[in-house]
Amino acid sequence: MAHKITSSANPLIKTLKGLHAKKGRAETGLFLAEGARLAREAADLGVWPDVMAISEAALEREQVRALARAAEQNGARVIETSETLLGQIAKRDNPQTVVGAYRQRIAPLDTLKGELIVALEGVRDPGNLGTILRTVDSVGAGGVILVGQSCDPFSVEAVRASMGSIFAAPIARASFDELLAFKQERGASLIGASLKGAVIPPDAPAPSRVVLLMGNEQSGLPPEMEARCDILARIPMRGRADSLNLATATAVMLYDLWRRQGYDGAR
Amino acid sequence: MAHKITSSANPLIKTLKGLHAKKGRAETGLFLAEGARLAREAADLGVWPDVMAISEAALEREQVRALARAAEQNGARVIETSETLLGQIAKRDNPQTVVGAYRQRIAPLDTLKGELIVALEGVRDPGNLGTILRTVDSVGAGGVILVGQSCDPFSVEAVRASMGSIFAAPIARASFDELLAFKQERGASLIGASLKGAVIPPDAPAPSRVVLLMGNEQSGLPPEMEARCDILARIPMRGRADSLNLATATAVMLYDLWRRQGYDGAR
Repeated sequence: MAHKITSSANPLIKTLKGLHAKKGRAETGLFLAEGARLAREAADLGVWPDVMAISEAALEREQVRALARAAEQNGARVIETSETLLGQIAKRDNPQTVVGAYRQRIAPLDTLKGELIVALEGVRDPGNLGTILRTVDSVGAGGVILVGQSCDPFSVEAVRASMGSIFAAPIARASFDELLAFKQERGASLIGASLKGAVIPPDAPAPSRVVLLMGNEQSGLPPEMEARCDILARIPMRGRADSLNLATATAVMLYDLWRRQGYDGAR
Repeated sequence: MAHKITSSANPLIKTLKGLHAKKGRAETGLFLAEGARLAREAADLGVWPDVMAISEAALEREQVRALARAAEQNGARVIETSETLLGQIAKRDNPQTVVGAYRQRIAPLDTLKGELIVALEGVRDPGNLGTILRTVDSVGAGGVILVGQSCDPFSVEAVRASMGSIFAAPIARASFDELLAFKQERGASLIGASLKGAVIPPDAPAPSRVVLLMGNEQSGLPPEMEARCDILARIPMRGRADSLNLATATAVMLYDLWRRQGYDGAR
């Protein structure tokens, strides 16, 4: 069934290895996701890779063979390869035994739904972005809107940190003007996280629809964006530290807003 | 003033480079912290390095010279070196212009104070540990207790993620039995984060003293530890994801507990 490739000079292997670089991702429109568990989770969401590379050893397990068959039936090119080549593709020792190359999907802005949506202005660290995707998925928020120049959500580091949420949480891109039009149209409040804001009283209800806007790791929100927010909210602080990690701050804000919405829909 | 070193074979440079490895940190009792800003923040807390390496260019700035003088007066060995050597010490391109080697400090368990204390069972990822130290510092919690086998809080990655909180948030080590005795003695409630727990009603007040126990990234808390917690608390979830990043989950729990304590002491 699976086509066997053992040479690192094979063009397909080269393409997979190239997905670590932004250039390779831009040219192919693909990204790497590692692990059989992730591939199964993606499959559960109806997402199949263009290419699935599997180690010989893993193909001895019936569960993996079933996954490979299903992937083939859904249009994936399945290749059997060595652990050495998988290590080269993943650029790590002890690579996962299954690696998929998936098509990057950016959602049109107007398809994002839900009472809570996160907008990130110029996020720089892919680990933060991936972790935020995981949190957005965990609170059932409607997705992430990348505003301005942002790191690549499809980089290997972001995908790893997302722990599969890259397949579940919609990602859109927008200029700040488009973001303003979007929140207006949805009747949502734009809440910006800012040291200049006030701490929202803990028992104040949240607006029924919120777009939460977070600034980047170095400099927070630019003043011209703060000026256009409906609410500027400050996270309470007590110690020496004057800021939280971006993914941490986003999670604290999201959970606080969701609590004010009554943890609606929690399982 | 500053002793000039330009050879990478110099024993002191070798020692500093060695601090990237656990062995080097264990043998010397030192750890690396990068950046003039961090060195100033540490100094504000009365913490001075054993060794401070500074680039020639940085020593032209009066602010850096003042820092170097103060460090020397406080017993640091200050060395002037090249950007190349600083890059080798930091193992990165574009290194910071000031790098300090500080003494590792583990606080005796019974010196930890405060209404909120975090205990981490077997934390594995130094980035998570550093991020948690930053959050602990941000909410003014009493410190972090490392339970069982944990990654090294003084690794370069943990120190970087802590953004200076490595100097501010006390770190202690304890066996689980010692942790139990500690919380008993303090009259604190041991709250374990667990999928098996119940979501605490949002308006329930928190115990006045809490030790928050978090399991590790892979497997959460072992059942025998869960059985000894006073409360098992589950974080509400709604989406596909079945867990949060450890640093994220710790922050969500800490902020929720602090809110229930009335954000006491917030500035």
